[in-house]
Amino acid sequence: MSDKAAKRARFEGVFDKIADELIDYLKQNGMPEEAVAWYKANLYHNVPGGKLNRGLSVVDTLEILKGKALTDDEYFNAALLGWCVELLQGFFLVSDDLMDASITRRGQPCWYRMPGVGTIAINDSFMLEAAIYYLLKKHFRQESYYIDLVELFLETTFQTELGQLIDLITAPEDNVDLSKFSLQKHHLIVVYKTAFYSFYLPVALAFRVAGVKDEAAYKAALDILIPMGEYFQVQDDYLDAYAPPEVLGKIGTDILDNKCSWNINTALKFATPEQRQILDDNYGKKDSVAEARVKELYSQAPISIPERFEKYEKESHDKLTALIAQVDESTGVRKEVFTSFLEKVYKRQK
Amino acid sequence: MSDKAAKRARFEGVFDKIADELIDYLKQNGMPEEAVAWYKANLYHNVPGGKLNRGLSVVDTLEILKGKALTDDEYFNAALLGWCVELLQGFFLVSDDLMDASITRRGQPCWYRMPGVGTIAINDSFMLEAAIYYLLKKHFRQESYYIDLVELFLETTFQTELGQLIDLITAPEDNVDLSKFSLQKHHLIVVYKTAFYSFYLPVALAFRVAGVKDEAAYKAALDILIPMGEYFQVQDDYLDAYAPPEVLGKIGTDILDNKCSWNINTALKFATPEQRQILDDNYGKKDSVAEARVKELYSQAPISIPERFEKYEKESHDKLTALIAQVDESTGVRKEVFTSFLEKVYKRQK
Repeated sequence: MSDKAAKRARFEGVFDKIADELIDYLKQNGMPEEAVAWYKANLYHNVPGGKLNRGLSVVDTLEILKGKALTDDEYFNAALLGWCVELLQGFFLVSDDLMDASITRRGQPCWYRMPGVGTIAINDSFMLEAAIYYLLKKHFRQESYYIDLVELFLETTFQTELGQLIDLITAPEDNVDLSKFSLQKHHLIVVYKTAFYSFYLPVALAFRVAGVKDEAAYKAALDILIPMGEYFQVQDDYLDAYAPPEVLGKIGTDILDNKCSWNINTALKFATPEQRQILDDNYGKKDSVAEARVKELYSQAPISIPERFEKYEKESHDKLTALIAQVDESTGVRKEVFTSFLEKVYKRQK
Repeated sequence: MSDKAAKRARFEGVFDKIADELIDYLKQNGMPEEAVAWYKANLYHNVPGGKLNRGLSVVDTLEILKGKALTDDEYFNAALLGWCVELLQGFFLVSDDLMDASITRRGQPCWYRMPGVGTIAINDSFMLEAAIYYLLKKHFRQESYYIDLVELFLETTFQTELGQLIDLITAPEDNVDLSKFSLQKHHLIVVYKTAFYSFYLPVALAFRVAGVKDEAAYKAALDILIPMGEYFQVQDDYLDAYAPPEVLGKIGTDILDNKCSWNINTALKFATPEQRQILDDNYGKKDSVAEARVKELYSQAPISIPERFEKYEKESHDKLTALIAQVDESTGVRKEVFTSFLEKVYKRQK
């Protein structure tokens, strides 16, 4: 087994323990067998099957901060918080898929499309969220930083919901209106909908467990990780149109789905009036010819998405590197937390 | 203005302040105007229009515990917690209405049926929930009992979701199977789905604000308020079939909707084999003839719902009165908290 696979397997082992604890909670409350089985299916269908980058980040960050291998207890606590981030993600994905009428997720049918589930998925998504706070209380109540963990999750949840709201009302799939789009809206959507929970949250959790108390450390983490999360999402948007599907592992559908992506917002900013008309006529149509027309324009001057992306990527890297260089390690933080993150995302191809 | 109307008006005034604080939070985060306006519409459509019994209970309970009129600050804090209970209720109702495909709520269209809303209502319901924790932090962070308030809301939320899960999988509208029903299931559904958040939560919140620390007081409150909440829901179920619509203010649809109500579960328990067959053939059908057939049976021996309800009502009252008599007031609690609650619900006609 590769190091990476072994790391993942160890992390996944913790999920089984967590799922057992949650299932026991239902049993202790006298829930009927069908409800217990339903919740178990909900947990296993929706939480462990992803890339687990967010969850593993908690463990990785704590390891860097400690500067040595974690004890079994330290590992378990960090992995548990990592799974809480994955539970939060599960909460969002189950409900997003229903809101977006998505078909598949992680190579299997979306949960709401499983036999007999339907809109019950809404309540199921709530129960993934509720699991977070049950686990935090069970495992961290005696810690002085317990309330900080709870608040981190609650505040990040609100931020993510704000991002989701802007996204939903800016880019409804059934009503294309490119005049609602802008790079500023795109910035708000990606920061709120993705960056807080995917980049800042896992690191801030590890900081709390490591005993980092200096608020300046959290401020520095925010100042670096929010732009890094934004950069990550811009890559995602770019790869959706430009990565070969066999490398990306999926076929991008942002143009068909009227997504408020970096590509379309950049195109709108630089398009000539003629190009703009073509974008208005073809974006967000469920039609592969219209999609091809938009893709073609993306690469034409003065839109020139590939060149602009390359420039954006370089500038982001330089900016993030400069911010990391300024980190004050006396607050208990280590620059390596951020450089290791940046290395994972810089120039990724999928 | 009647006392009751004045009380309600004062309480509603606090909602305007709360809504402003939440809207300011969005503005401070640079949210676009459309998102701010959307959230405001969400808050006003879904939170203040109900009977407000749950929210007002927090204020009433604190007044009884203090034994004198509240100061303006005490009033505001209690009302704010009351509105947090109403926000929690809004979170549940917005999502329940979507899951149940309901048409109207509180005399207006359900939120998801408002123009342009649809499944965005799912995220909107989340944002009602998130508001609770934003407000708790803003107004109670400096209090020693802050974490207790947060935990009360989080734990009650999980309990309510468990109740909703059992209800959803036991009584799906499109698949009638009375063999899944039982009075035991009904008990679990009403306790988890209704009693914790509607009866225990408001009182426990007021206890925390009043400085009640003795865990025995919370245990006593639970032991009284959970059966009281169950009694309240059984009344609700009974009135759905037996109250004159002009008194009830709505037309009961539990039989048409395949609801797992006290009436049907009691009927199933006492039905003869012939009656059982009629119930199987007619319950949960979208058909007023089938509905009338079930209603007719409800009153026939040995099912005899009205007689059984009368007996249940009397026994519940006696049991609750006995539990209240045992309350130890040295823990800081007053029996009047519970008697005033019981007076409000006993033998209600709507």
